[in-house]
Amino acid sequence: MEGLNFTIEKLGDRKIASPVPLSNLKNDNQADFVSDDQFVLYHIEGGGVLLEEARSHEQVLELAGPRARIYFDPTKTHAAIVTCGGLCPGLNDVIRAIVMCLWYRYGVRRISGIRYGLRGFLPEFAMPTMDLNPNVVSEIHTRGGTILGSSRGFGHRSLDVVDSLERMGVNILFGIGGDGTQKGMLAIATEIKKRGLKIAVVGIPKTIDNDLSFVQKSFGFETAVSKAVDSVSTAHVEAFCAVNGIGIVKVMGRQSGFIAAHTALAINDVNYVLVPEVPFDLDGQNGLLTILEQRIINRHHAVLLIAEGAGQDLIPDTNNVDASGNKVFGDIGVFLKDKIAEHFKAKNIEVNIRYIDPSYIIRGTPANANDAIYCQRLGSNAVHAAMAGKTTLLISLIHNHFVHLPIQMAVSCKNVINPEGPLWRDVIDATGQPMSMKN
Amino acid sequence: MEGLNFTIEKLGDRKIASPVPLSNLKNDNQADFVSDDQFVLYHIEGGGVLLEEARSHEQVLELAGPRARIYFDPTKTHAAIVTCGGLCPGLNDVIRAIVMCLWYRYGVRRISGIRYGLRGFLPEFAMPTMDLNPNVVSEIHTRGGTILGSSRGFGHRSLDVVDSLERMGVNILFGIGGDGTQKGMLAIATEIKKRGLKIAVVGIPKTIDNDLSFVQKSFGFETAVSKAVDSVSTAHVEAFCAVNGIGIVKVMGRQSGFIAAHTALAINDVNYVLVPEVPFDLDGQNGLLTILEQRIINRHHAVLLIAEGAGQDLIPDTNNVDASGNKVFGDIGVFLKDKIAEHFKAKNIEVNIRYIDPSYIIRGTPANANDAIYCQRLGSNAVHAAMAGKTTLLISLIHNHFVHLPIQMAVSCKNVINPEGPLWRDVIDATGQPMSMKN
Amino acid sequence: MEGLNFTIEKLGDRKIASPVPLSNLKNDNQADFVSDDQFVLYHIEGGGVLLEEARSHEQVLELAGPRARIYFDPTKTHAAIVTCGGLCPGLNDVIRAIVMCLWYRYGVRRISGIRYGLRGFLPEFAMPTMDLNPNVVSEIHTRGGTILGSSRGFGHRSLDVVDSLERMGVNILFGIGGDGTQKGMLAIATEIKKRGLKIAVVGIPKTIDNDLSFVQKSFGFETAVSKAVDSVSTAHVEAFCAVNGIGIVKVMGRQSGFIAAHTALAINDVNYVLVPEVPFDLDGQNGLLTILEQRIINRHHAVLLIAEGAGQDLIPDTNNVDASGNKVFGDIGVFLKDKIAEHFKAKNIEVNIRYIDPSYIIRGTPANANDAIYCQRLGSNAVHAAMAGKTTLLISLIHNHFVHLPIQMAVSCKNVINPEGPLWRDVIDATGQPMSMKN
Amino acid sequence: MEGLNFTIEKLGDRKIASPVPLSNLKNDNQADFVSDDQFVLYHIEGGGVLLEEARSHEQVLELAGPRARIYFDPTKTHAAIVTCGGLCPGLNDVIRAIVMCLWYRYGVRRISGIRYGLRGFLPEFAMPTMDLNPNVVSEIHTRGGTILGSSRGFGHRSLDVVDSLERMGVNILFGIGGDGTQKGMLAIATEIKKRGLKIAVVGIPKTIDNDLSFVQKSFGFETAVSKAVDSVSTAHVEAFCAVNGIGIVKVMGRQSGFIAAHTALAINDVNYVLVPEVPFDLDGQNGLLTILEQRIINRHHAVLLIAEGAGQDLIPDTNNVDASGNKVFGDIGVFLKDKIAEHFKAKNIEVNIRYIDPSYIIRGTPANANDAIYCQRLGSNAVHAAMAGKTTLLISLIHNHFVHLPIQMAVSCKNVINPEGPLWRDVIDATGQPMSMKN
Repeated sequence: MEGLNFTIEKLGDRKIASPVPLSNLKNDNQADFVSDDQFVLYHIEGGGVLLEEARSHEQVLELAGPRARIYFDPTKTHAAIVTCGGLCPGLNDVIRAIVMCLWYRYGVRRISGIRYGLRGFLPEFAMPTMDLNPNVVSEIHTRGGTILGSSRGFGHRSLDVVDSLERMGVNILFGIGGDGTQKGMLAIATEIKKRGLKIAVVGIPKTIDNDLSFVQKSFGFETAVSKAVDSVSTAHVEAFCAVNGIGIVKVMGRQSGFIAAHTALAINDVNYVLVPEVPFDLDGQNGLLTILEQRIINRHHAVLLIAEGAGQDLIPDTNNVDASGNKVFGDIGVFLKDKIAEHFKAKNIEVNIRYIDPSYIIRGTPANANDAIYCQRLGSNAVHAAMAGKTTLLISLIHNHFVHLPIQMAVSCKNVINPEGPLWRDVIDATGQPMSMKN
Repeated sequence: MEGLNFTIEKLGDRKIASPVPLSNLKNDNQADFVSDDQFVLYHIEGGGVLLEEARSHEQVLELAGPRARIYFDPTKTHAAIVTCGGLCPGLNDVIRAIVMCLWYRYGVRRISGIRYGLRGFLPEFAMPTMDLNPNVVSEIHTRGGTILGSSRGFGHRSLDVVDSLERMGVNILFGIGGDGTQKGMLAIATEIKKRGLKIAVVGIPKTIDNDLSFVQKSFGFETAVSKAVDSVSTAHVEAFCAVNGIGIVKVMGRQSGFIAAHTALAINDVNYVLVPEVPFDLDGQNGLLTILEQRIINRHHAVLLIAEGAGQDLIPDTNNVDASGNKVFGDIGVFLKDKIAEHFKAKNIEVNIRYIDPSYIIRGTPANANDAIYCQRLGSNAVHAAMAGKTTLLISLIHNHFVHLPIQMAVSCKNVINPEGPLWRDVIDATGQPMSMKN
Repeated sequence: MEGLNFTIEKLGDRKIASPVPLSNLKNDNQADFVSDDQFVLYHIEGGGVLLEEARSHEQVLELAGPRARIYFDPTKTHAAIVTCGGLCPGLNDVIRAIVMCLWYRYGVRRISGIRYGLRGFLPEFAMPTMDLNPNVVSEIHTRGGTILGSSRGFGHRSLDVVDSLERMGVNILFGIGGDGTQKGMLAIATEIKKRGLKIAVVGIPKTIDNDLSFVQKSFGFETAVSKAVDSVSTAHVEAFCAVNGIGIVKVMGRQSGFIAAHTALAINDVNYVLVPEVPFDLDGQNGLLTILEQRIINRHHAVLLIAEGAGQDLIPDTNNVDASGNKVFGDIGVFLKDKIAEHFKAKNIEVNIRYIDPSYIIRGTPANANDAIYCQRLGSNAVHAAMAGKTTLLISLIHNHFVHLPIQMAVSCKNVINPEGPLWRDVIDATGQPMSMKN
Repeated sequence: MEGLNFTIEKLGDRKIASPVPLSNLKNDNQADFVSDDQFVLYHIEGGGVLLEEARSHEQVLELAGPRARIYFDPTKTHAAIVTCGGLCPGLNDVIRAIVMCLWYRYGVRRISGIRYGLRGFLPEFAMPTMDLNPNVVSEIHTRGGTILGSSRGFGHRSLDVVDSLERMGVNILFGIGGDGTQKGMLAIATEIKKRGLKIAVVGIPKTIDNDLSFVQKSFGFETAVSKAVDSVSTAHVEAFCAVNGIGIVKVMGRQSGFIAAHTALAINDVNYVLVPEVPFDLDGQNGLLTILEQRIINRHHAVLLIAEGAGQDLIPDTNNVDASGNKVFGDIGVFLKDKIAEHFKAKNIEVNIRYIDPSYIIRGTPANANDAIYCQRLGSNAVHAAMAGKTTLLISLIHNHFVHLPIQMAVSCKNVINPEGPLWRDVIDATGQPMSMKN
C-alpha cells in the first residue's frame, strides 16, 4: 500500500461556468459546489499509534461532486455510455442517473448508448447505438439488467474503440463494468491521451462480488445479498423438513466471499460458510465432511452456503478462460453435493440433499431502495467529474464519501475478506462453524 | 365422468351438541351451522342444451362447514396430523388452522404432530411425535415448509399405520398430501373400517402442480406462480441483456402444466410455454428449434418456460421411480438447454443460454395472503368434518364452495390443461407462440 | 333473483372470419373458438332439493372468448378505452391486455385512450386523447393506477359522450369502472342504440370493494387484501409493543366488508372485524367498548379492522355526495378512535391507540401475479366480445368461468357478505370475536 | 467539535480468559480478538490542508469487538435488556443478537427482558421480567417491533432503576433506545458509579430519524426508507391519475430530514422535499404555494414529501411535550394539505389532494437484509464490550468500523442534514426543486 497516488488527471483548463444552479458561498444555507482541494483521508485505522501514512497529504482522495467551472460546453457535448460484463442489480439505475444528470442539470442533448459492451464499438458487429434521453430511461430502473445489453471481452481492442469514439465524435465515455472492463477503460484512456484527444473517460465500478479495491461497497451488492437470503431461507426449509436434510446454496464470489459472508449474517440459518479466502479440507478430523456428519447425527439438518470460488484447490482445474479472460472455475457446488452424497452413502446414513444455485435470479433483480440511492449518486457524480474535464477515473465510495479514484488504483488489486478481521469473526459467531476446517 | 358418487361416509350418529358458538336459525343475522343436505352442483358448464347430468341429484357435492351436532366428544378426542410428499407453500398454515380450530373452537387438547410423513407412524423409525398447541403453531406460517417434516413413501404400510393409530389412541387423522398420500389415506381408512374402529380420516389435498381432480385450485399454487414469475422476470432480463440471449426456466408440473401456463399469463415475457399436455417436436418446419431460430434471428432474445413433465417423449426413459412410486423424469430443462446449444452451434449462430431451475425456491416459500386465507379455511373445514364424524373424505374447493369429497374421487384421475380450452387459448394469446409445434 | 335475463345484445350479423389463429375443430388438440351456445349455470347451490331455477335454461351465462366469426373489420376499427372512478390495482394490466389483444390478435391499429374518465369525452375540458399501442403499454403494469388518469362523475352526460364517440368515429368503447361507471355505460349504450349506431360498449367491472353482483371476484381485490395484511401486521406490532396498545386499521368497503373479512382470515392478528353488513353497538353488555375493555384488561393489546362503511348508523350523517353521486361517509375510523380514547380515559385505564388508514397505499399498488393473470384474461375477453359485435355487456368471472353479463344485471344490486354464510362464519372463527356485538 | 474525548470507562481489571474461540495470533488465518489500542480516526475529511485535529491522538475511536480477556465470569453473570421509545425496524434483531451471543459465545444463562421500557424497572408497575434464551428469540426477527414492549419516559427515575438493578442482581444492562433513552442510561451509569457497583451499562443507539451524532447510520433506517419509497410510489400514482393531482407524504424526521432525503433519492417521483434543516416560505415569489401552482399548471401533478419537523416555524406551537420530554409538533402534513387546498380554491384551480401518513407502517416493519446484518453485528459487539467490563458506552458505526463511543458524546448534539453538503445537493439534483423556497 506504499506510494499510493490518488492524483486525478484533467483534460485541460475549465473555462465554462457550470449551468448547475448551486452556490459558491459557504454558510448561505444553499447546496455548494465542490472544490478540487476537498478530500477524505484514505488510511484511518490504526493500532497503537496514529499511522504515519495518515499524515501524508498524498494519502487523500479527491471528493467527487459538481464543480463551479466545467470543461465541456454542454451544447456541444456528445456522451456515450457502455455497460460490460455480467449483470448486477442497479445497472439501469446508473444509466438513468447519468442520462438524467446530463440532460437536466447540464443540458447535454447527445447521449448514445453503446449496445452489448465494448463489442458495440467494433465495426465488424455493425451494431447501431441507442439514443438516450429522459423519456427512454425514466422507468428502466423497475427492471433488472441493462437496457444497453452487455457482453464480455474485447478489452484488448482499445485502438478500435478509440477509432470509433473519434468517428462518433464522442467527448465523454462512461464505462460501467468490473475489473476487466476498467482495465479496458484504462487502455482506452491511455490511447486517447496518446492521440491527444479531448475525451474524458469516467468509470463506474461494477462487481456483484464486492471485490474491487478502494471501493467500500459495490452497487447492487446489498440487493444481491437480500436475494441470496431468500434462497438460503428456502434451503433451510428444505433441510429442516426432510429426513437428515442438507441444503446447499451456491452464490457468486470468485475471489472473495462477501455475498456469502453477509448472507450468513443476515439470516441465521446457515451452518457453514465456505469462501475462497478460507481454505478447508474435506476429510480428516477437522474436515468439512466429518464436521457435517457430526451435525447431521446430532441435529438432523444443515445448511451450507458456498461462494463459487471456494475450495478451488479441491477440484480439478478446468483450464478454461471466459471471454473476459477470467478463469472458468470448476463447479464447487455440484462437486460438494456429490462428495457429501458419497460420504453419507458410504457411511450408510440417509441424507436428503437439496442444491440451489440462484445466481441468475440474484443478478437479474432490480436494485432495492438503498442500492437505488447509491446508483443515483454514483451516476450523478460521474457526470459531474466528466463535465469538469476529469478523466481516467472511477467514482468510488470510500469511508462514506463519494470520491474520484484513478482507474489504475482500482484495478491494481482485489478486495477480499480478511480471515482475521471483524467481518469473518462475526460470520464465525453467527454460524457457530469452526474457526478452521483444515487439519 | 359417469356414475360419479359424491356420498360421504360417516362414523356414526352425532349425539353431541357442537361447542362452536354458531346459530341454528336462518335470518337472525348470525353465522350459521351447515346441514348435510346443503350442496353445490358439480356439472355446471354446458353446450347447446343443459347437460342432463346437471339435473341428477347424485351429481352434487356436500357443503363443508361446522355441524350443529358432532360425533366426537372434544374432551376425549386425540387428533393427529401428518404431512407427506414434497413441500408446498401453505403447509404450516394448514397445520396451524387445524390446531387453532381444534383447540379454540372445539376444546380439543390432545393434538399430535407425526414427524416426517407416514414414516413417523412406523415403529422401526422410532420417531417421537410433537405435541401441538396454539403456542407452538402461532407463528409457523411465517416460514415455508412444514414444522412436522415430510417424506415420501410408505403408502403400502397401512396396516402398520392403523396399528400405530390404535396404540396412540388417535380418533382423528388429518393427512395433508398429494395423490400418493391420499391413496395411502384411503387404504388406512379402509383398514380402519375393516377393523370397525371409530377413527375419522380427513385429507387436505396438496399438490403444487394443481393437478388433482375435483379440486378447483390447490393451496400454495398461487404463491408458486408468483415466485415462478420472479424467476421468469430474471430470465427475461438475462436473455434481453445478452447477445442472442435465451432464458430457459423449468418449473414444477409433472403431468400438468398449470404453473407454467399461469406464470406465462402473469408475466408477458415468456415466448414459448412447454407443458406435458401439448406435445411438440424439436426439428422440422414446426419444431421448437426451427421456430426459436427464427425468433433469435429476428428479435435476438427469447424466453422458454418448461414444465418438468413436458416433452418426456423426446428424452430417454430413466426407468426409475421415487419413494412415492412416481416415475423419475428425465430432466427436460437440461436436455433442451443442450439441444438448443447444439442447434445454434451447428448453425454457427452465437447464443447465450441462461438456465434457471427455481423449484426449491418456489416450493419452500411461505404462502402469500390469498393462499393463507385458503389454507386457513381448508384447515378449519377439515376440523369441522372430522368432529362431525365424517370420514374418508377430502376438503375441496369446487366452484368456490368448500365441499366434502370422497377420497376415492380425488385420486381417480388427474386434472390437466385442456389444450382446446380457454386457459391454453389465453396462453397462446399471451405468448404469441404457434398453436402447434408438431410437424 | 327471479326473472334473471342473461341474454346478450349484438350489433348485427358477423360476416368476417376472425384473424385470430384458433381452431374450429374439437379434438384436434388445438385451442378452440367459443360458440354462442356455450354457457355456465348461474344457480348451483342448493339445500334439500335441487333448486328449480337451476333447471331453467334462462339461468345460464354465455361463455366469453374468441368467436370464429367477428363483426368488426379490424383494419377499419377504432377502439376507445376509458377508466373511471377510484384507483384499483390492475387497471394498467387491463388496459395493456386490451391493447395487446386488439393489436396483435386482431390487427386493430387505432386505439384511443380517453383521459381522466368520462370527462375526457366532454368538449368543455378539451382534453386530447392518448394514442395507445404495444410500445406505449408494454411496461405500464409495473406501476399502479391508470396511465389514462381517472375521475368521478359525468355519468349523466351520455348524450355528450355519444356525440363525442360519433365525432371521433369510435366503433368500440371499453369502459373500466365500478357501479356508477357501468350505469353510465348502460346509458351510453342505450343512447347508441336509440341513434342506431354500430358502436359496441363493453365494460370491465372494477371495484376494489368486491361488491359487484354477478362478479365472483373483482380484479385488484386480492392485491388489496395482501396490502391490507401488511398494515394489519404493523398495527399488531404497535399494539403488542405498547402498554395496553390498541391498533385500529380502516380499509375500503363502503357497503360490503370483503377486504376486511379476507384480511382478517389472511392474518390472525385481528381481534375484531367491523363491516357494514353486521351492525354493532358501542355501549351496553355486548357493545364493542365493553368487550374491548375486557380484552385490554385480560390481554393488554387488541387490533380492530374496520371497513369504511361499518357503523354508519352510529355517526352523524354528512349529508354530502361525491362527484360519482356516492354518499360521503362519516369517518368511522376516526370516530371509533375518539370513542375508544374517551371510554378508557373515563375508566382511567391507560391505553395507547395507533390509527392506520392505508387506503391510498392499498389502491395505488401494482397488481400481484394472480391479479395480473385475471386482468390479462378480462382484457382479452373484452376484446373478443367487442370484435364479435356484442354490446352492452360486462366481462365477468362466475364459478371460475369468464362470461358475458348484461350490464343491467351487474348494476341491479350490490354483493355483500352474508352474515349467516361461510365467509363470515370463518371470520368469527379466525378472530374469536363474538357473533354479535348488538345488545 | 473541540476537545472530543473518546475515552471509554472500564469497571476493573480483566482477569478472565474469554471463552470465545478466537485467535490471539496475527497471520494465522484465524479470526482475531481485538485489543484496546486499535482505533479509527474520527476526522477524516479536509479542505486545502490536512486538518490538525486528525493528528491528535484523542480524536480516535476505540474499535469494538471481542477481547481476549474479559471482566465478567459468564457463569455468574446476569444480563438485562431494555427497549425504550418509539418502534423501529430491527429491535427484535438486536435483542436476538444479544441473547445469542451471550448464550452461545460466552455461556451466560441468566438474561432478563425488561418489559415496556424503563417502566419495567419501577416497582409501582409491578411488571414481571421475561426470561430470554435462544428458544424464545430464535424467530422474533420475522416480526417488527420488540418482544419486550416499549414505552417512553421515566428517564429521571435513575435512582429507582439502579435500586431495581441491585435487587435483581443485574451485572450488565443493555439499553436500546434513542437520545432520551441514552441520556437516561448515562444517568443510570453515573448513579451506578456513585454507588461503586460493578454493573456495565452498554447502549445500542436507536433512532429511525438517523439523527444521532457520532453514529454513521442508525439501524432500521434503510428499512424505513424502503417502506417510505413504497408510500411515495402510491402517492405518485394517485397524483398522476387524478386531475391536477397532488400527493403529499409525511414521514418521520423531527429535527433531521434524512428519511425524506434518502427516499427522494431512491425514487425519482418526488418533486419537493421539505425538511427541518431547510426553511421555506409558503407565499411570495419563491414560496412553496407559488412554485407548486406553476407546476400544477404546467405538469398537472406533483408529489411532496415532508419530514414531520419541517416548517415548524409556520404553524402554531402546540406547547405540549410527550412522555419522553420531546416537544409535540404541530402536524405539518395536515397543515400543508389544508393550506394547499385553500390556495387552489382561492385561485379557482381544481386540484385533487391525496394525503398519506405511513409512519406506523414504516416503523412496525421487520428489518430488511442489510439492517438485519447491522443489528446482528451491533448486538454482538455490545455483548463483547459488556463482557470485557467496559461501561457507559454505545456501540456505534463510524467510517464503517464498529466502535465504542462514550454515551455522553452521542447525546451531546444531533446529526442533521447539512444544506450545503453533498446529500442535500443530490436531493436538489434528483427532485429538480429550487435551491431555496425562501423569499
